[in-house]
Amino acid sequence: MASAALRVAVRQLSQHSRAGAPVLLRQMFEPKSCTYTYLLGDRESREAILIDPVLETATRDAKLVKELGLRLLYAVNTHCHADHITGSGLLRSLLPGCQSVISRLSGAQADLHLEDGQSIHFGRFVSWMLRCARTLYRSVHEKIFTLPGDCLIYPAHDYHGLTVSTVEEEKTLNPRLTLSCEEFIKVMDNLNLPKPQQIDVAVPANMRCGVQTPPS
Amino acid sequence: MASAALRVAVRQLSQHSRAGAPVLLRQMFEPKSCTYTYLLGDRESREAILIDPVLETATRDAKLVKELGLRLLYAVNTHCHADHITGSGLLRSLLPGCQSVISRLSGAQADLHLEDGQSIHFGRFVSWMLRCARTLYRSVHEKIFTLPGDCLIYPAHDYHGLTVSTVEEEKTLNPRLTLSCEEFIKVMDNLNLPKPQQIDVAVPANMRCGVQTPPS
Repeated sequence: MASAALRVAVRQLSQHSRAGAPVLLRQMFEPKSCTYTYLLGDRESREAILIDPVLETATRDAKLVKELGLRLLYAVNTHCHADHITGSGLLRSLLPGCQSVISRLSGAQADLHLEDGQSIHFGRFVSWMLRCARTLYRSVHEKIFTLPGDCLIYPAHDYHGLTVSTVEEEKTLNPRLTLSCEEFIKVMDNLNLPKPQQIDVAVPANMRCGVQTPPS
Repeated sequence: MASAALRVAVRQLSQHSRAGAPVLLRQMFEPKSCTYTYLLGDRESREAILIDPVLETATRDAKLVKELGLRLLYAVNTHCHADHITGSGLLRSLLPGCQSVISRLSGAQADLHLEDGQSIHFGRFVSWMLRCARTLYRSVHEKIFTLPGDCLIYPAHDYHGLTVSTVEEEKTLNPRLTLSCEEFIKVMDNLNLPKPQQIDVAVPANMRCGVQTPPS
C-alpha cells in the first residue's frame, strides 16, 4: 500500500464498487513505472477525476474518459512523482475544462493547490488531501484500518502484477504495517532505496504538470 | 475481449463482484505476455480456481492462494496458449490437491479434460467450458451481450494497461464485435497476426501443463 496523499471517498467505494454502483471506478496500468492510474466518475452527473495519470498513457486515459461519456474535472497528482512524468498537463490540453491538482506542500505548479484536509468534489463524491509523512503509520491505522475488513485497497504501484487487496489483508499481512510504530519508523528511515531512474527528468517536469509550458 | 473458452459464473459475478460478495475475485497481471490470471474463490467454503496461470508468476499465485486461506481445486487453461508457458503444472506441485484442467479439444495433457458445455464446481459456484471458433460471434452476442449492460467484462489480455470494461462498452465500442457476423468473420480470417514470440516453446510445454514431467 503506497503512501499516496489523496484519499478518495473510501467508505462509498467499499460499499458500492460493483458495476452498477453510483461511482464508476477504473484501474489502469503503466508498465514502465508500474504506476496505477485511477479514473473515478459519478455515473449520474458524469463528472470525473483522474488520480496519478502518466504522460505516456494520458492519451489512453483521455480516450476512455470520452468513450465513457465523462467530463473530467480534475487530473490529480497525489504528490510530485519521482518515477514518472505526470500526464496532468497533457490532459488539460486534451480535455478542455480539466484542471490539474496537487498539494500546496509539493511546491509544484497546478491549477488548484490543496491544503491538508481540503477536498475536491465530483458529482456526489468527494476526495480529500491527507498529509502523510512521519504521520503515515498513524493515518493508516486510524483512518484506513478502522474501515470494514473487506474494504478494497487499491495500490498506487505494484511490481508483481497484483491489483487489489483488502483492509483485512493489509492489517494481517503487510510486512511493514504489522510492525509497531517505532519499528515502522526505523524501517522507513533505513530503506536505502536506489535513486528512481526517472527522478532527474520526472521531478522538474512534474513541477510543471509534466509539460514545458506552465498552466495559464 | 478475448475468445477465452471458459466462462465463469458470469451472472453471479456481475451482481456480486464487490468486496463483501460471496465470490472472491482477484485479477493479476503477467507483463511479458500481458496475460491476466484470475483467482476465483468461494468465501464460505474457501474452495477456489485459477484461470490461465503463467509459469513465471505461479509462485506469486500460490502465495496469494495460501495468504487468503483458500484451497485451490483447479488450475484451468482456457486453451493451449501460444504466447506463454502455463503455470498449471507448477501449481499442481506447489499446492497439493490442485488439478490441472483444459478442454479435451486442445489435445493437451491435464488431470481433467472438459467437453464442450461441461462444468467444474468450486464452493457454490460453477464455471463451464464453451467451444469458441467460428461460433465466437454468435456465442458472444447470444450469451454475453444479453447480460445487463453494467456486467463487468474482464479481459484475458490487455496491451494498453486497461483492466476491465462492461457489456455495454463492448456492445457499443468494440471495433470487431460491433460488425455484422459476416464482416467479423472476414476480419478474423484476415488478421495476419505475427507469429507469437514464445509459440515454439510455449505450445509444446503447454501440452504438458508447462512442465517436463507429465501429470501422474
